[in-house]
Amino acid sequence: MTTPTVHTSIRLPEPTLHRLPWYLAYVKIMQSQGVEYISSTQIAKAINVDASQIAKDLSFVNISGKTRVGYEVNSLVIVLEQFLGFNSRHRAIVYGVGRLGAALMHDSGLAQYGLEIVAGFDVRSMKQDNINGIPLYHVDKFCQKRQELDANIGILTVPVEKAQECADYMIANGIKAIWNFTPYRLQAPKHIVIQDTSIYAHLAVMFNRLNNLREEEK
Amino acid sequence: MTTPTVHTSIRLPEPTLHRLPWYLAYVKIMQSQGVEYISSTQIAKAINVDASQIAKDLSFVNISGKTRVGYEVNSLVIVLEQFLGFNSRHRAIVYGVGRLGAALMHDSGLAQYGLEIVAGFDVRSMKQDNINGIPLYHVDKFCQKRQELDANIGILTVPVEKAQECADYMIANGIKAIWNFTPYRLQAPKHIVIQDTSIYAHLAVMFNRLNNLREEEK
Repeated sequence: MTTPTVHTSIRLPEPTLHRLPWYLAYVKIMQSQGVEYISSTQIAKAINVDASQIAKDLSFVNISGKTRVGYEVNSLVIVLEQFLGFNSRHRAIVYGVGRLGAALMHDSGLAQYGLEIVAGFDVRSMKQDNINGIPLYHVDKFCQKRQELDANIGILTVPVEKAQECADYMIANGIKAIWNFTPYRLQAPKHIVIQDTSIYAHLAVMFNRLNNLREEEK
Repeated sequence: MTTPTVHTSIRLPEPTLHRLPWYLAYVKIMQSQGVEYISSTQIAKAINVDASQIAKDLSFVNISGKTRVGYEVNSLVIVLEQFLGFNSRHRAIVYGVGRLGAALMHDSGLAQYGLEIVAGFDVRSMKQDNINGIPLYHVDKFCQKRQELDANIGILTVPVEKAQECADYMIANGIKAIWNFTPYRLQAPKHIVIQDTSIYAHLAVMFNRLNNLREEEK
């Protein structure tokens, strides 16, 4: 099996980047069951996404299917993981070690997806000096430790009213990408990557849809 | 101050439902600073969303601003919270008490946003009988306990290869909405609400944008 070259520097459309992990998750399950080849039609049927959409999304990654048999499963897993950055190591720090910050430091799942949390920072002095073996520091040491640890991703898990000020501080001290778990809409220079994961916004969507359902049932 | 009637049964566009929590977060900060009135222009400036977009989004919620002074801050907070369902109580159960499931049970922030986790279920027998005071049960007791607890939201935090089967099981036992934290694309009947929060998909977007950045710098 030859591993194809992967060009991860293409700027992919966000919807494609959201769908590729679905394909990966499904194809990995097929891989664990010993399946060797899979077609976009099979993936489509299993996960309820249009086959032509899947073929289009997969055309961004450097892999081509064989007529009638489809994509080689092992290659597809490798290419998707490389393409999504899941088998690289991206060093990140957690900023704000409350419940959510601590939970993320405990989540070993993140490492499987290429995110290595190398430190946690908080404005409060903490009783313990590590969580799950990952060192904790006071924010005063942020500048020095970030450089030493060579981390360029900041995971923002502070109270919402501190979000912008803490983001500014991280950016001033060399952070290039912020994974924002607060519901605050951050402002940042253009060359900074901001990724919002406001789980509370997702709750709002779910509650609204549930209410619609109840109304329909009346 | 009169509290306006809120019609939460309108099916809102998803992008609007994603933006409303940004407005709420910002307006609450202003409220804590004693601000009484706020205009869509002020919100726009602070959070970098177009003022006309904000006015349009807010037209879905039953509140109108006064010329020159804008929206009354206290009313806006109440209306947005009601509208988003954050001050109702939605009873949910966690299905799959691993790292992530346990972390969510510890996250008291969710209750502030209207989600009350009333039980955790796992296929493994567990040493402790509760997390953060929330009872843990074996999945065998799911049907009985879900009814007793009157929970209709299931938070899916199982390993990805079990996602579909566990979703099917919850639906067969009366769950109406699934908050899916796995990267698996679930299939479900139309009357079931599925809300995906695949944090790993967000990682993929962030890694891709970071890589683009590096390429540009070369």
